[in-house]
Formats: sequence, C-alpha cells, structure tokens
Amino acid sequence: MSAIEPKSVGCVETQIARIALPEGGLRLECGQSLPELETAYETYGELTPARDNAVFICHALSGDAHVAGYHDDPHKTRGWWDDMVGPGKGMDTDHYFIVCANILGGCKGTTGPSSTNPATGRPYGSAFPPITIGDMVNAHLLLLKHLGISRVAAVVGGSMGGMQVLEWAIRHPDTTRHCICIAAGAGLSAQALAFDVVGRRAITSDPNWQGGDYYGTGHTPAAGLARARQIGHITYLSRRMMSAKFGRERRRAAGEQAPAGKSGRDFQSDFQVESYLEYQGEKFVDRFDANSYLHITRAMDEYALAERFGSLDAAFEPVQAKSLIVALSEDWLFPPEQSVEIANALLRAGKHVSYCHLHAPHGHDAFLVDIRHLAETIRAFLPWVKHSKPSPPGPRPAVVPEVLGSATDEEVNALCGMVQDGRRILDLGCGDGWLLSKLAERADIEGLGVDLDIEQFIQVVDRGHAVFQADIDAGLAMIPDRQYDYAILSETLQVVHKPRFVLREMLRVARAGIVSFPNFGKWTHRVHLWCRGRMPKGGALPFDWYNTPNIHLFTLRDFVTLCGEEGIRVLDTVCIPAGKCSALLVRIGLCNLGAERVLVKITRDEEGAADRPGSCRAI
Amino acid sequence: MSAIEPKSVGCVETQIARIALPEGGLRLECGQSLPELETAYETYGELTPARDNAVFICHALSGDAHVAGYHDDPHKTRGWWDDMVGPGKGMDTDHYFIVCANILGGCKGTTGPSSTNPATGRPYGSAFPPITIGDMVNAHLLLLKHLGISRVAAVVGGSMGGMQVLEWAIRHPDTTRHCICIAAGAGLSAQALAFDVVGRRAITSDPNWQGGDYYGTGHTPAAGLARARQIGHITYLSRRMMSAKFGRERRRAAGEQAPAGKSGRDFQSDFQVESYLEYQGEKFVDRFDANSYLHITRAMDEYALAERFGSLDAAFEPVQAKSLIVALSEDWLFPPEQSVEIANALLRAGKHVSYCHLHAPHGHDAFLVDIRHLAETIRAFLPWVKHSKPSPPGPRPAVVPEVLGSATDEEVNALCGMVQDGRRILDLGCGDGWLLSKLAERADIEGLGVDLDIEQFIQVVDRGHAVFQADIDAGLAMIPDRQYDYAILSETLQVVHKPRFVLREMLRVARAGIVSFPNFGKWTHRVHLWCRGRMPKGGALPFDWYNTPNIHLFTLRDFVTLCGEEGIRVLDTVCIPAGKCSALLVRIGLCNLGAERVLVKITRDEEGAADRPGSCRAI
Repeated sequence: MSAIEPKSVGCVETQIARIALPEGGLRLECGQSLPELETAYETYGELTPARDNAVFICHALSGDAHVAGYHDDPHKTRGWWDDMVGPGKGMDTDHYFIVCANILGGCKGTTGPSSTNPATGRPYGSAFPPITIGDMVNAHLLLLKHLGISRVAAVVGGSMGGMQVLEWAIRHPDTTRHCICIAAGAGLSAQALAFDVVGRRAITSDPNWQGGDYYGTGHTPAAGLARARQIGHITYLSRRMMSAKFGRERRRAAGEQAPAGKSGRDFQSDFQVESYLEYQGEKFVDRFDANSYLHITRAMDEYALAERFGSLDAAFEPVQAKSLIVALSEDWLFPPEQSVEIANALLRAGKHVSYCHLHAPHGHDAFLVDIRHLAETIRAFLPWVKHSKPSPPGPRPAVVPEVLGSATDEEVNALCGMVQDGRRILDLGCGDGWLLSKLAERADIEGLGVDLDIEQFIQVVDRGHAVFQADIDAGLAMIPDRQYDYAILSETLQVVHKPRFVLREMLRVARAGIVSFPNFGKWTHRVHLWCRGRMPKGGALPFDWYNTPNIHLFTLRDFVTLCGEEGIRVLDTVCIPAGKCSALLVRIGLCNLGAERVLVKITRDEEGAADRPGSCRAI
Repeated sequence: MSAIEPKSVGCVETQIARIALPEGGLRLECGQSLPELETAYETYGELTPARDNAVFICHALSGDAHVAGYHDDPHKTRGWWDDMVGPGKGMDTDHYFIVCANILGGCKGTTGPSSTNPATGRPYGSAFPPITIGDMVNAHLLLLKHLGISRVAAVVGGSMGGMQVLEWAIRHPDTTRHCICIAAGAGLSAQALAFDVVGRRAITSDPNWQGGDYYGTGHTPAAGLARARQIGHITYLSRRMMSAKFGRERRRAAGEQAPAGKSGRDFQSDFQVESYLEYQGEKFVDRFDANSYLHITRAMDEYALAERFGSLDAAFEPVQAKSLIVALSEDWLFPPEQSVEIANALLRAGKHVSYCHLHAPHGHDAFLVDIRHLAETIRAFLPWVKHSKPSPPGPRPAVVPEVLGSATDEEVNALCGMVQDGRRILDLGCGDGWLLSKLAERADIEGLGVDLDIEQFIQVVDRGHAVFQADIDAGLAMIPDRQYDYAILSETLQVVHKPRFVLREMLRVARAGIVSFPNFGKWTHRVHLWCRGRMPKGGALPFDWYNTPNIHLFTLRDFVTLCGEEGIRVLDTVCIPAGKCSALLVRIGLCNLGAERVLVKITRDEEGAADRPGSCRAI
C-alpha cells in the first residue's frame, strides 16, 4: 500500500464516457471505422467558467487515465504521475483542470481489442482494426468535446504521450495553446523498432496467442507478453541505473549456498536483475492485454512525421502552440538527439520553442521518477500558474555577476539602443534571461535565449522567453541563416572555446551582432603585467589565472583586428570606463587604453555602412 | 562468395586435436569432469625453433577457430578476423605463429553439449556439465601443450574472448608475455545480464528445447534461439550505426503499396530492420546449437573477477604480462567504463598496462569491423614485429611543436637532470612519448604516459612505453598516491581547463613534479601589450588569441605565487631565454622578465628542502 501524498488530489475515480459518434462511427486512419467508442478518463481541479484552463495529459504505452491521487481500492493505488500533478505541483490542480484519458486501443476502460465488438457480441480480438497515434488524438478530442472543452491551455505527454502531443499540435493547431513533449521522438529509431519487433514476435509466436482470438479460451499469451515487457523494461532504465539498482547482486544472502538453479539444467540464474524482470513480466501480464500491446506498439512504430510530411520542418508548419521539448540525458530509448531534432525543426519552422536537456540518471523512465527539474520547468512554462505566482521572478541570482561580470544600467541602455530597430533577438549565453526581459520591457521583441545551465533555463522560461539549452561552441546549426535581426554575445565571447567560430555563426544567423567583453588592453591591466609581472586581476577580470572562465583574453584592438580579417564591419563601439583616468582616456579617443569593458556592434552587411563607421564613444 | 583478400593466409583447414587428458578426465570448475576432449583449431604462420612466437586468439560467443584465410568450401568462407590476421596485418603471420581454437562447450568442433557422451553413446544434451571461462582457458592450454608450446608471446581476445584473456593472465601468469583485452569486462553489467536472461528464457521456454534433450527428436528450439540471437544482435550495434544501416527504411520500394503485413493481423512490419533481425536469427539457427548458446552465455554471466577475488586489484595481483586494454567508444554491451575499470585496477596493482579508447562507430562489433586503429595498436604493442620493422619510429611529427612549442636539447637535458634520481616517471600530456624515450635512453626508467590523441597513443606504445589515453582534466583517480617518483607536465599546464586541480593531482601521485610552460611575463610580451595594446604573439606563444590552445596564460611569478598558496615548494627553476637581451635579464636574476619558457621542479615533500631552495638559473 502506498502512503498517501500530503499534497494529493485525494481519492479519485475513473469515469467512463460513452462518446457520441457521427454516423458511420469513429473513422480511423486505416479507413475502417469503430461503431462505438467508450473512453475512460479522470479529471482533477476545477474548470474555469471560461473553460480555458484545461490541460490534457497523454499517457505512454502502458499507462492509463489514473494520473493523480489514489483509487479507493485495497491498494490505494496512486496515480502514475502523482508527483507531478496536484495542488502546488508541477501541474498545479489549484490552477488547472487536468484531464487524462486511456488511449484508444488500450485495455484500461477505453475501447480496444478486448472490448465487445457490437457486430458479434464478442471481444474484437483479431477483428480490431489497426490504429494510429492520430486516431488516439482524435479520440482524446472527442472526449474533450464531450466535456464541453474546445481548446486546452496545454497538452502534455512523455514517451508515446509525446508523440500524441506532436500529432495534436500539428493536426489540431487551434485546439491547444501550449504543448510539452517529453522524452519522445518524431518516429522511433531503428534500435527502438528492433526491440519492438522482437517483443511482438515473442507474443505472436506464443501458441496461446491464437492469431489474437484468445479471449474466452482460458489461455492468454502470457509468456510472450512477459518476454516483450521484459525487453521493454530493459530499455526504460539507463545502464548506469540498472547497475546501481541491481549490479551483479544475487537473490541469496551472502554465504548462502547457490541454489540448484545456478548451475542447474533450467539455466535460471539467481541474479537479482532476473527476479526483477521476472516480477515485471508477471505483474504486467496481470494488468495488460497482449493484443493492446501489439496494437499500441505498432502505432508507435508506424509514427513517422518526416516520412509523412516529407520533412520535419514541413510537418511542423501548421503548429501554433508554444512548445517545450524536453530531452532526458540518459534516455536511450528516445535519446536526446531525437528531442533535439524536434526542437530544431520547430525553430527552423519559425515557431516559439524551448528545448532543455534534463539530467536524468534513471533513463527513459526518469520523467516519472527524477521529476524535480521537470516539474519546475513545466510549472514555469505553463503561463497561468506564472501569473498567479506570489512573487515576480526576482533579482538575478548572484552567480551571474560573479562569473561573467555584471552589466551596468548604462551598458544595458547602450545595448538596447543598439538593437532598437530589431524585433527578432538572439541572446547567446543568455543567463537567466534578464537581458531579453529588459529588451522586452522596451519593445515588442521575439527573443530566443541560448544557455547551458538548467537553473538558468527555468528562469528564462519563467520570464516567458523561448530558450534553448545548448552549447554555443557546438554551433547554431538549428538556426537558419538570417533568422534574427540581432544576435547578442554579452560577456560570453571570452568564455567560449572557439571565439572565431562563434562570431561567424552569430553573423550567419543574424544580420548584426552585439558583442560585449572585458578589454584586456585597459591601462590598469597593462600596468599590472608590466610592473608586477603578473596576470591582471580586478575590475572586469576578477578571477585568478588558474580558475578564470575567461579562457580567451583579448583587447579591443585584437577584436577589431579580427573583425577586419574576417570581413566583419564594426558599426559602433561603446566603451565602458571604470574610474576617472579610464574615462578621460576614452574621452580623448584612447579607447583601448581606457575601456574596462566594450560593447561592439558588428555586421557583414553593406547597408548602414556610413552609420558611424568604426566610431568609438564612451558612456 | 567473399572475394579473397590479397594479403591472406590463403586456404586453410580446421584441425581437430584429440587432447590427452589426465586420469579422471578434464576436471571442470563445477567439480564434474569431462572424460574426453576434442579441440578444433587453426594455425597460421610458422612457429620459430625456439617456439616463442605463438599468439593465441580467444574467440567470442559465437566465433570459432576459423580466424583467417578461407575454407575450401563452396562459399570460400573467410575467417572472422581475416582483416586483422595475415601477412603484414595487425597480427602479422610473417612474424607470429597464430593459434585459435573453438571454445569448450562450443559447437564448432570442440567438445560441447552436442558432442557424443562416451558414457551413453548419445549427445550430452542436458547431461553436459556447467562450464566456466576458466574451463575454456584450461582447454586452450591443453591444446598448446598438445602443440608443444609452453608459453605464448601474446594472448588476444575481444568480448568474451577478452574475458578469457584476463582469466589467462591471472591464472596462468607465466604462460604469456603480453595480453590484449578488447571490448570486454571483468564481469557483465546488469544490463548485459538482463539481455542474456531474456535470451535464455526465450530458448528454455521454447517447447522444442525439451530440457536440452532435443538432439535426434527432429526438432530444435529454433524459434527461441533465433529470438535470443536477435536480442544479441541489437546489442552488438551502436544505436547510431543501426540508424545509419536501416533507419526507418521499408522493405518495399518507394511508391509501392504496403504489403498486407503492415497493417495486417500477423503484426509483422515491413521495416528493413525486421528483415535484418529475421535473417540474423535464421542464419544463426543454421550454424549454432541452442545448448551451446545457453552454456556459453551462462559462463559469461557467471564471470565476475571482483566477486571471486574480493576486488579487481586483488584479482590482477598475479599478472605478469604486459597488458593492453582496448575500449570501443560506442560499445554499449561492454561499455568503455568497463575497460577503464580493468585498466585502472591493473595500474593500481602496479602492472605494465596501456589503455586506449578507440573511435568505434559500429559499437561492440567494431573490433571486427572498424579495425584500422586497432590493427595499428596491436601491431605496435606486439614486440616482435616492432623489432623487425623496416624503420625506427622516426622524428616527432610536426604537429607537436606546432601546437605546444618544441623543447630544445638544452631543455631536455635540464629536464633529464631534474629527474635523474627517479625511476618511475609519469608524463602527463606525453604526446608521442618522445620525452619518455629520451629519459629511457639515459636510464632504466619505468614510465607511463597520459595523452588524449590515439595517433600519439600508438606511437607511445610503439616506443614500448605504457600509456593511458585519458583526459588529464578529469583527474588521475586511477593512480594511487605516491606511485611515481616524478610527474611531468611538459608544455601542458597552460592547455588544461583546471590547472590548479591538475597540479594537485600531479603532486598526489608523484613525490615531485616538473612543470614547463611559456612565461607570459617575458619582457617582449609585456612590451607587446603595453605598446601595441594587443595580446602577445610570437616565440613560445605562437597563436592568435582566438585559436590558441593556451587557455590559461600565466607568468613565472604567477606560478610561483600559486605554489606558495598551495603549500608547494619550488625546488629548482630553469629559465630558457630567447635572444640576447632575454638571456641577459635571466643572468642578472630578472627571470620573470627574461625567460621565454620555464622549467620548474616542485614538491610537497619536506625532504630536499635545502636543495637550491627556489633557485632560478638559466640554460
């Protein structure tokens, strides 16, 4: 019996809706129809009078409608995502009306192969038609209609649930405002297909399967289904987590004799991992139908957006929702590169999309288990909760100025002045998004941040900006040429490994760039080295040589020279002096001696060439 | 039919040896005995009169004795490692006498479950006793005795063959001079165990298995064996390679209608990966015996050095052979961390061991496929071939001085002087091993290099030094405290990310360290910055700021100050000036102004404190 969470939605019941279908029944993508549709669902929270706070959760392969709270059964069965859904949780039932339904083809109350076929009065069995992810989403939308909801605030799902989210956003773009796709893909990898193939063969080669018509025979293809589930379970855990959980531990206590099995003729081992798999197989057989398993895994296998639309970019063209794509670091069933592929295609299609890569030691199952960052990210991304938050995002955390130097108000003003004629702004190394927010306060911008840190990522999302958790040094391949008016590198160029490459990338994706950096040519640094024979430290360079993040030091003149070599034109230079002497030097034109920090506007364009060519001014 | 390789050993035949056994037969680790032993083997090359050039190859799970050349059969079947073994190849049959034997318990000519049980006159079947990796090695040694060979030059194996190599080196240390363990582990991971468990269950739950006594019944557990092999095959390929090979391609040509199967009731897909797995399963069933599969995989599962000996360090204590441990980057069945674990334990046990991490896009199977670097590494490691090479390793490649500055003869002499009272030398960032070789020319040293580049790794191995392919920034956890007399960081400290951490590690593992680096405090650099306002370039700092590998610049004074803060004592400083003015400055004691490059000897020890305390001299 599970302990009841204090922040729980409490005791809930699964409802069954008998969905009104058009004449001819529910038309499926295969061309066949289902004459009747029953859908099992649960809801938590209150629907607003405007009916605009619904969030639909799409479950994965073996899930069901019971997401949160507990059932009034002897086990007090907890919902499968109870850590995520409830009052004050990532998906906050104090603000949202949460709906989840068992999928079409399932065996948890929604019409599936084990349901009664009205034509025969017996279970469908082999007569159940092939279904697709699209059919599942259509069934979800019919349920929402049944509940009187025409548009949801968000649709959310992990694994195969994420596929439903993508399908929903593409095929029914006006029915959702946000979509969150977690640990999914726009199609299974060859490896995931291979595991599914072997799993399905295990079922269909089980003599008890009988072509799918085993209902009422007294036998089920339990051995085959258990084998399929065991293979699945191996793929849901990361290798490291499996080692951490089981290692090479044996069932027997230390010192105990090996059971007959160990070297025995049945070839059963006594490794704990074998007991675990055995248990998972048995448990699954008790609660799941083999035909549902076959139908649902085939629907996953056949889901392939790029094949269907020619390319992912084309597939995402209709999307209107703001998207959040979440990858899990140790997921090898839907590896991060598949989420990256989705996020990049959405970005190329010009959509509002954020991407993050969560540290997830558990592997694929982490979206159910390692949920702290996931819950924070979802909470920040869903807009309604944000508006009702007790306090605004608050001041920038201390880590930012400590690491990269802090921008003064003058600097921010100068920077805002430099980009005032642009709307599409890319902030490379955006930190917590403070600069994007400053810019957004002054004008209606469309911003995208890029940064590596997940805590920062969550803050940027919370501020309402799109953001990619990515390494700038790896390039910006996800951004087409000239996608942005301005790209900004604020106190970032000196910390990257490939400054020239990053500059080139920035001026490929934007028509102009703004670079701010500490000037190693400032007179105090020169004096420091000249007189003391030591690496300069202080001001904009507050670190010791052995622990500085500034791994490429350079002067204003070095930077301007590189621009010249690269065919980059310097449009405007703003020097930020520190101290009176420094300010004086800048005023008399000795910028490279006087500037503590520098803000430079650059471009490869010819236009605006006369616009203060190479001018250097102080603030 | 495979094309015959031009550099082939030609047409070969598998021999069967009837091994003379002691009274009571071949005693197995389980306590039972086998009354008879036949071993299938092949040999290539000529045994020297001294019988000292034999190399034994241990094959993996489904391999056999046919390593190289081709059989005189209709298919001209090529050996499974023909790319590796032959005249002029990685294992050069012009120099070595290569032996490979089918393992005990196999089904390719060596005694196994399908062999005739002399007690009954029928196949062993369920009566075949459990075998271990140790039993396999014992059988190999009996074959060598049969061939009149008491000691081999090397024993080599990949995957389960690598387990045999480890077992051999531990249990029979005086019978091999070198051992090469590729893509293996000292025990299976929980994930690999899990796959084996599911595979074996597929066989034992096949009704045709009949407890193992299916011989002569007209049925074999073909479906179960095929399923097990399919699971195995998924694990032999990397995810990326599987995607590259199959992606989501379909069997049908573009535009063709989906076959009935696609949405059909048999749940067979038309993905090419399904055909591939189907083919692999069928092919395997034709050539392999299910009982052999069960016995051999169980032997792998039960192999666990750390469990058996208490720790890996204890397990490797008896090893005498020089070892080469090879990891494959994309191998997820025996992931690189398992090879690292072996290599680190051998190092901790004080053995001569080299470790490399080969780029292997294919995954586990790469040791059979992506063999260029593997062949070069093995060729360099096996000593005999090296001695017969036409030319010595040659001059240091140009890449080294270009990247890190070149050491002058004076500098090398000074360095050699600094370490002359030490025998155990660790060279961190060893490049191609030139410095270790210089030191070895002057004294009998025991050296270990550490570097990241594989081409350099091969050269170090070729020079006969032990070397770890590893990232110094990740620390030296594999090296116990005070394992070395001296650790050297030659032109390396300024390119690492964590200089202070690396210094701490170096003085943890060695009683003293030698650090050489370019001095940013040299007067020309100061003038450069002071007068030109640009980052210094030239001399020991030949790079532009935006592409320099020198990401932590510092002066001699900075370094000495850090040493002071860290409680590190500077024993000796040698300044290498460039130019007359520079030399003069050093001579009058202005080392930080004059030195182009610096060589500093440091320690945390108290002893030798009076030995030129902090002295600074020129060469």
